[in-house]
Amino acid sequence: MKTEDFIQRTFELAKLGHGRTFPNPMVGAVIVKNQSIIGEGHHKGYGKPHAEVEAFNNCTESPEGSTLYVNLEPCCHTNKQTPPCAQRIIKEKIKKVIICNLDPNPEVNGKGVELLRQNGIEVEYGVLKEDGEKLNEVFFFSQQKRLPFVHLKLASSLDGKIALPSGESKWITGSVARHFVHNLRAQNQAILVGAETIRKDDPKLNVRLEHFSGEQPYRIIFTRSGNLPQSSQVFSDELMSKTIIFTEKKIDIHLPSENIILIKDISEALHFLYERKLIALFLEGGSNLATTFLRNQHVNRLSLFLNPSLLGSGKNAIEDLGISLLDQRPTLQQIESRWMGEDLLLSGRLK
Amino acid sequence: MKTEDFIQRTFELAKLGHGRTFPNPMVGAVIVKNQSIIGEGHHKGYGKPHAEVEAFNNCTESPEGSTLYVNLEPCCHTNKQTPPCAQRIIKEKIKKVIICNLDPNPEVNGKGVELLRQNGIEVEYGVLKEDGEKLNEVFFFSQQKRLPFVHLKLASSLDGKIALPSGESKWITGSVARHFVHNLRAQNQAILVGAETIRKDDPKLNVRLEHFSGEQPYRIIFTRSGNLPQSSQVFSDELMSKTIIFTEKKIDIHLPSENIILIKDISEALHFLYERKLIALFLEGGSNLATTFLRNQHVNRLSLFLNPSLLGSGKNAIEDLGISLLDQRPTLQQIESRWMGEDLLLSGRLK
Repeated sequence: MKTEDFIQRTFELAKLGHGRTFPNPMVGAVIVKNQSIIGEGHHKGYGKPHAEVEAFNNCTESPEGSTLYVNLEPCCHTNKQTPPCAQRIIKEKIKKVIICNLDPNPEVNGKGVELLRQNGIEVEYGVLKEDGEKLNEVFFFSQQKRLPFVHLKLASSLDGKIALPSGESKWITGSVARHFVHNLRAQNQAILVGAETIRKDDPKLNVRLEHFSGEQPYRIIFTRSGNLPQSSQVFSDELMSKTIIFTEKKIDIHLPSENIILIKDISEALHFLYERKLIALFLEGGSNLATTFLRNQHVNRLSLFLNPSLLGSGKNAIEDLGISLLDQRPTLQQIESRWMGEDLLLSGRLK
Repeated sequence: MKTEDFIQRTFELAKLGHGRTFPNPMVGAVIVKNQSIIGEGHHKGYGKPHAEVEAFNNCTESPEGSTLYVNLEPCCHTNKQTPPCAQRIIKEKIKKVIICNLDPNPEVNGKGVELLRQNGIEVEYGVLKEDGEKLNEVFFFSQQKRLPFVHLKLASSLDGKIALPSGESKWITGSVARHFVHNLRAQNQAILVGAETIRKDDPKLNVRLEHFSGEQPYRIIFTRSGNLPQSSQVFSDELMSKTIIFTEKKIDIHLPSENIILIKDISEALHFLYERKLIALFLEGGSNLATTFLRNQHVNRLSLFLNPSLLGSGKNAIEDLGISLLDQRPTLQQIESRWMGEDLLLSGRLK
């Protein structure tokens, strides 16, 4: 196996923690001696041991003199409960460390590498850098911008409609696509919707996947009017403590008072969520909220499920974005396309 | 090589005539002796020899005792200038004929096979049947329905918009997609547009491809109001004799009188074109004409060029289709997707 193969393996391990590590990144580590893997580990969740520590603990023989592969620079800061990984690597007498990405956190960036080198350990970094950045796009973005990463989901016909004039829309995409949305929910910390979605669909907004053992995401509702029915499922089910309302007006809903937050605008809500370490947000609609986020350039990734049909007239997936020139239009980059049953999923970054 | 490989080869040969054979189908023929191809040919254009005749004429040795592969059933009817291919096959003492599709033309269907068998020739048919039907979808449709096949092109943003509210739209898709449209034009006999497209864009509506040696398509303009500027390029350039206007009102445009046709509706125009042997129509817009064709279920294939961007508000690619239930919406089948530079082309049959 080559260097890139071992780094690929750290990605695979890292992904086992998808949706559980936030606000931490997904990290995997592999310890290799004489071309054989003698220990592997990944960061299993926020507050749990780092990937390097897991890999050391899983070693089937002494790691002395071996090479450690890890997709993120080992930490060296001591302002947290767990001892820094760099110290552990030195203690275990690792000979060489091969890293994918440097840590974007200013407290660490390059300092982990420096500490290892000062202790005579050979260090290489930047292997499959872009792939690593993509894997941890949420973490990188939120570290750099001090804001949550917003992933917008849309589902429409080929002509950008989400419902007929009559309102009929429930099944515009097929069952495979609808099921996949639960995977996306599971990979995020919170689901965002507008009040209209609550009023019209009264959704559960939870992850419904077989064998799902992660934490259910928060349900975050944005309202301008404050018009929300107390009888909605999100205010009465077993997850009601994970329902947060951002409102521009005082409202009277039976929820813990700290779950109802008065805001002036979306930006204030995003800063609030960032401070609460909620950095992976999944915006599911409706079109008003999606439009507001897009207008304010607060969408980082768009996943669009396209049903290969035409509706003609009806409700638009997106309303007025306030664009007067084509050059100003939001454009997807690094797009991946994939069929989901009869529907086509296009997913890309918005920049 | 296997049977399927030789039939695949007939497809390749057939495609060399793409856009030149209408209202005839595209046909290729391969003559094989001792597992070697000794002659190949294709139908080069309407009024020219059939593929089988071309293949016989190109034989490098006597075809006696060999196998003929052809993607369409050899003709046996004598009500045309050229002698029927079945007779020629018998005369050349072909041992076996392997066919992809039977001829949908009721004058031929199965009768070519019958005639060959009566003359002691072994015949097999139905090899790669679906692929052959797709290759000649225009021919099959028009033979069965006695109507032209309409291929609709749309180009829009991901949210189904073709222009900003300001009207800015000229370059919604990139240069690769725009260039490819000329290939689609070259594969059709006529380009259809609404009067608004003529008024707004004053397009040439011709094929602009390097090394293009085929015939330029007809330009067919639909107008309700009759409001068309005499100064438009399509009424004054070197192809003006190939400009046809379908109008619901008498109009005063300087064109040969037989090029201006009064109609009551689209259906009447389609029957007129079918009678004139114009069966491969490429509908380029605008949205009003596209919507009218879709509403009346006159679109057989949709090719949608999606620019991976959002416009929000602006002009819709498609207007009201008069659908009141989701089940009634036009849906694409047998979809192929393909990136064209930055744009995604989705093409499928509408049924």
